[in-house]
Order: sequence, then C-alpha cells, then structure tokens
Amino acid sequence: MTARPANAHQARLLRLLRDGGPNSRAQLGDQVDLSRSKLAVEVDRLLETGLVVADGLAASRGGRRSHNIRLAPALRFLGVDIGATSIDVAVTNAELEVLGHLNHPMDVREGPVAVFEQVLSMAAKLRDSGFAEGFDGAGIGVPGPVRFPEGVPVAPPIMPGWDGFPVREALSQELGCPVMVDNDVNLMAMGEQHAGVARSVSDFLCVKLGTGIGCGIVVGGTVHRGATGSAGDIGHIQVEPEGRLCACGNRGCLEAHFSGAALARDAETAARAGQSAELAARLAASGTLTAADVAAAAAMGDATSLGLIREGGNRVGQVIAGLVSFFNPALVVIGGGVTGLGHTLLAGVRAQVYRRSLPLATGNLPIVLGELGPVAGVTGAARLISDHLFSPV
Amino acid sequence: MTARPANAHQARLLRLLRDGGPNSRAQLGDQVDLSRSKLAVEVDRLLETGLVVADGLAASRGGRRSHNIRLAPALRFLGVDIGATSIDVAVTNAELEVLGHLNHPMDVREGPVAVFEQVLSMAAKLRDSGFAEGFDGAGIGVPGPVRFPEGVPVAPPIMPGWDGFPVREALSQELGCPVMVDNDVNLMAMGEQHAGVARSVSDFLCVKLGTGIGCGIVVGGTVHRGATGSAGDIGHIQVEPEGRLCACGNRGCLEAHFSGAALARDAETAARAGQSAELAARLAASGTLTAADVAAAAAMGDATSLGLIREGGNRVGQVIAGLVSFFNPALVVIGGGVTGLGHTLLAGVRAQVYRRSLPLATGNLPIVLGELGPVAGVTGAARLISDHLFSPV
Repeated sequence: MTARPANAHQARLLRLLRDGGPNSRAQLGDQVDLSRSKLAVEVDRLLETGLVVADGLAASRGGRRSHNIRLAPALRFLGVDIGATSIDVAVTNAELEVLGHLNHPMDVREGPVAVFEQVLSMAAKLRDSGFAEGFDGAGIGVPGPVRFPEGVPVAPPIMPGWDGFPVREALSQELGCPVMVDNDVNLMAMGEQHAGVARSVSDFLCVKLGTGIGCGIVVGGTVHRGATGSAGDIGHIQVEPEGRLCACGNRGCLEAHFSGAALARDAETAARAGQSAELAARLAASGTLTAADVAAAAAMGDATSLGLIREGGNRVGQVIAGLVSFFNPALVVIGGGVTGLGHTLLAGVRAQVYRRSLPLATGNLPIVLGELGPVAGVTGAARLISDHLFSPV
Repeated sequence: MTARPANAHQARLLRLLRDGGPNSRAQLGDQVDLSRSKLAVEVDRLLETGLVVADGLAASRGGRRSHNIRLAPALRFLGVDIGATSIDVAVTNAELEVLGHLNHPMDVREGPVAVFEQVLSMAAKLRDSGFAEGFDGAGIGVPGPVRFPEGVPVAPPIMPGWDGFPVREALSQELGCPVMVDNDVNLMAMGEQHAGVARSVSDFLCVKLGTGIGCGIVVGGTVHRGATGSAGDIGHIQVEPEGRLCACGNRGCLEAHFSGAALARDAETAARAGQSAELAARLAASGTLTAADVAAAAAMGDATSLGLIREGGNRVGQVIAGLVSFFNPALVVIGGGVTGLGHTLLAGVRAQVYRRSLPLATGNLPIVLGELGPVAGVTGAARLISDHLFSPV
C-alpha cells in the first residue's frame, strides 16, 4: 500500500470503514459532516487509490440501491507485541480482524537483534501460511518507554540493550513497509478499545499486570503518552513508605510488592516456609514457580495462594484508587498475564477503589478484566499502524 | 454581546485575537488554514457582528498596509473565584486582562444564597467603578466538583448546602449574561495557562494547595475534567496506610496530613506544646493560627515552622511523584494560598519527585510556583466563559 488519504475527510472515512466495516455511501454520509456531492468526490478519490472498493449492494433506503464501500480486502497489517518473556505476532485485515496469530516464548533481554530475528521469522511463517502476501504496515509494542515520534525505546528498565535502538527504522527496512512503535501497555489499551471491553469508551485506564506493571491512558479516544512518552509508568509508585527494596533503587514500589515477578517470589518463599503443600508440590515438580502456578493453586482452593492474590489486589487497588481520584476515568480495565488470577484479584482491587476514591468518581465506574488476552496487544499494534496510515499525508 | 461565531474558523480567529491581541489580516492568515479570500470573508463577517473591530494600521509587510483587527474593546467578562474562605471577583476585557479586582473574606459554608448576594454586590461595585457597563459573560469557580455541562456542584465535601444548586442558571438570570461554572482548581490551571507560568504549555498539572488540595489537569491544551467532573481530586489520595483520620472517613489522606487547614492545626499543637516561641506568640496574639502565620514564622527562621513546611512538601511531593509517573506532564505548577510557604515547600516537593519518578519523566520537568496568585482563578474564569462564547453556536 503506497496510497494514503489526501485530506482529513478521506482519513475519517477510512477509519469509519475500519471500525464499522462495510458501509453504504448514505450510512457514511450520516457520520461525516460533508455535503452529498463532496462525500461522493472523496469516496470516488478513495476508490481510485485502491484503498477502498465497492462491495455488493447496500440495503435499500427507499431510493435507488447503492453499492457498499469497504476497505480493500487485500490490505494486511502486521501486529507485533514483544513482552518481557514472549513474543506475539499476528496478521490482520484492514478492519483489524486477526487472521493468523503466533506466540513464541523469548526473553526480551536477549536484545533487539535476536528478538527481531525471531519476529521476522514468525512474520515469514504467517506469510507462508497464506495469511498475507506482504504487509502494508506493521505496529510493534515493546515492554518499556518509547520516544514515540522516532519509535526508539528510551532507558527501558527491563530491556537492557534496547536503549536507543532504532526499532522503527530497522524493522521498516526489514519488512519493507511503514512501522510504528509504542509501549506494550498503550497497545493493550488500543486493542481493548478497538475490539474489546473498552469498545466505544473514550476515557479509560488499562492497567497491565505482567512481569512489570504499566497503565495505558486513553483521553478523548486517544492514547496519552505524556511529555516524554513515559506516561503510565505506575509500577514504581510507592505503596509502602518503608517497603521492599525495588530493582529501581527505591523502596516500597508497587512492582516490588506485587507483579508477576513479585508474586512468583512470594509464592516460592511461602512454599519453602511450608505454608502451602500445593505450592510446595509445584515447586518440587518444576524447580520454580510462576504467577500461573499461584493461579492454579488458588483455583484448587489453596488458602496461601488466595491470600497472596488478595493482598496483591489490595496493593494494586491502592494505586488505582489514587489514579481514579486523579483522572476520573469512565472505565478501568485490568489486563496482562496476571489476569489469570481473575476475580480474587479483581475483588481486592475493587475493595480499595470503592472504599478510597470519591463517590462521585466511583459511582458509575466499572472495574473489569480485559477481554482479549494476548489478542489485545497485537490488535492494538495493528490499530497503531492503521491510525498512522489512515492519517492525511 | 449576543453575537457568537457562526463556524469553527470564526471561533478560531476570535481565540487567536484573545490570546495574541491585535493582529493584521496577514498575521491571522499565517495562523489559520484558510485561503486569503476565505479568511477575508470570515473576518468581514466577524466585523459585521461587532465582535471584532478594525484598529489602526498594521506594520507593513511590503504591500499596501492593512488595518489591524482586534476584539471589540467594549467586551467585558466577569471572573468569579469562590474559595473556601474568600471570594475574588474581577472584570476583564476580551483579551482577559484584569481591569478591576475585588477580594472579600467569606466562608463558602454560608451557602449559595449568601455567597451570591456578595458576588453580585461585588460585581455591581466593579460596574459602578466604571470598569464595565455590563457583562458579556461570566465564569465562576467553586471549591468542589462540578457537573460541568449543567454547571451544578455535586456532593462538594467542603460546601454543605451547595449540592445540586443550579449555580449556572441562577447567576445567569441575575447577571443577564451567559455563565459557565467549573472547579476552582481547573480555573487556576486555565489562568496560569493563559497569562502565567504555563503559558504555551499544553500538558501540565496545576496543584492547588489551599484549605483543601486539588489538581488541574491540562491535556493537549484542554482541561481534563473526567467522566463525572471529579478529575483532579487528589486531596484524598492515601499517603500513610494507617495515617490520620480524615474528614472523609478514611485514614491517611493527603489533606489530613497536609493542607492549609492541617498545617494550621499542626502549628497550634506545636505552639501549645511549647515547641515554638514564635508560633506561641502569634497564637496568643490572635487566638488562632493560619498557614500564613506558619509562613511568617518560617520567614523569621522558626525551626518548627520550617520543619512543618518541609514535612508537608514531602507529603505533597509523594503524591505528585505518583502523578508524574502516571501522567508524564511537561510542567508541574504549585499554586494556592499555601504557596506563601514558598521555596521551602517547593524543595520538599522536588526532593520527592526527582527521587521517586522515572528519570525519563523528570529529566526535563520544571516544578514551579504559580505566577498569578489570586489573579489566576479570576483570569481562568474569564477564559472559561470566553472559550464558551468563542465557540461555534
């Protein structure tokens, strides 16, 4: 795809078709502030570019039936979500429906060269499986702060070796298409907004609980990245004045008290201290414990695991309560690997938020789990690049 | 003023003239995305409405010299800032310059009827002093959350008797002009943005430390009010898990540990406990202490007062550090009555923020005192109503 919309009207039409699927000219006309003749001009120009095509007859609205318009069915976006411990790669069509999706475990600390080799091989596999002939654009998420315009990670705490690496430029060259890069948490928020639980919500927070903890902030439908791209870095907010020592050097950070990594550590300590036969058995079997082990033990009724999760939910809830008071969102979404902990976690979070935040802010505030799981990040990545491509040149 | 801009272009031109003062047509043309002929049409229409007037010859740009355009010099806005313990009322011209300003001590708990009687008498006094013949619009700030579209306070903790009172409607009737109502903290942020330290900054936080504590949030140049208008309510964020009992019923809220009211209480306790001769003398003289007394004692080198201020700065800084991590602003402004505490306070805030937030977020983050003092709120109030009037009908 080399064509791009020539003006803001065309960009808006492309996004309407992306988000709403095939539409008649009349339906499109209802959603944009254009005269009938101007709309016809812009649609015709888009048809000429090949970005949109005519597609079947639209439902009659009384007069002559018109053709539906839709985005070109051959358009393909690549969505890449690089997590701390695994990589997700997916192909979507122009409506951002996932056509094919691969996951591969990999430690992000292996560095950008090894990680991108893996990403490119996964992309090739998806192409070879017939999901795409080529890619019209790619979105990439990385687990750390990104200088957004340049697509370069900046001082990412859990990604040694990535600082300043030109992710956008390097991948664009390898893939031969435009690339946009963002923080993985922002992409999860955009994914849930496009196709998940935050659909149609324009002001919300999306808290990702994984190896680390971050928060996607959506204001007026748009991701808020902050002055230097580090907005949403809530893992190092203090929850305990003289609390645990954190990897960042401070004491009492949320991440030091609760995150996938902290939970695994706490579970190992409990298992070794003989506080949980269930956890001890799992530790003996595999030599190490993960958040998933705690979730499984909790599902079997293990009191120690349930206690750890509840306590963690309280910690996260303590921070979210502050954010709710500050930001007054319409919705809080909890996502990420730790959501396997499910409703015990959610109950802990809710207890804190509903108790601590102003009634006006919590009166009508759903706090829910994300819907899309690992699909959220790759969908958000596809949305990121489509937002870029469906913008006026 | 009954005229309003007929479209978005006219609205933009009016705001450019408000924020930049008189401009030539050529200068205006440089700032808007309009052809020369379309610009001329819109300017001519604005001249017809009387909202703008021709005003002297513009500097030559080579060709025929053209007239400057400016907002009608007779336009007058009323800015009202109702605080917990005093009322500020000011008249501004269309460029939001304060022409006359009155302050009157009054407890907001006397209720809306008594407060508005006072506001109207102050407005009449300003009119009688010749600053205005009438008002083209008024902006009002109140010290509590506001349901913004309707201009109605909602469950305001420190304003018993105001819950649900139709401030906008009632004052509009009394004053005979359009009125907009907002939270006082949002107005302080808008004031500092229009004419103060945040001029030209589009993403910043403005923390108001007064009787209570609140935070104005500006995103992309616009105040973020949140889903229900309560955004920025940071006074009840927890700073101490098992801390002091707060008026809200929870423990350890920021306001319970530091605010104008908490500081006065702590100072009285210290004076009675014989910890400060300076504070004791002031208490003996007036029977009570205020934040201003602590500021004065600190200025004379009183160690107890300096300690209380430093400790307070640390508490506020602890909360701001979290907000900086979350929101990644380009600037943090500290304003409100407690800013008389000055640089001792600021030092405490900075120490916490620079120590606790991610380097990427604090690397280039000024934390400064507000510039406008009591003028910030009334200027923000005038800006609020002008934003409304300078919007397309």
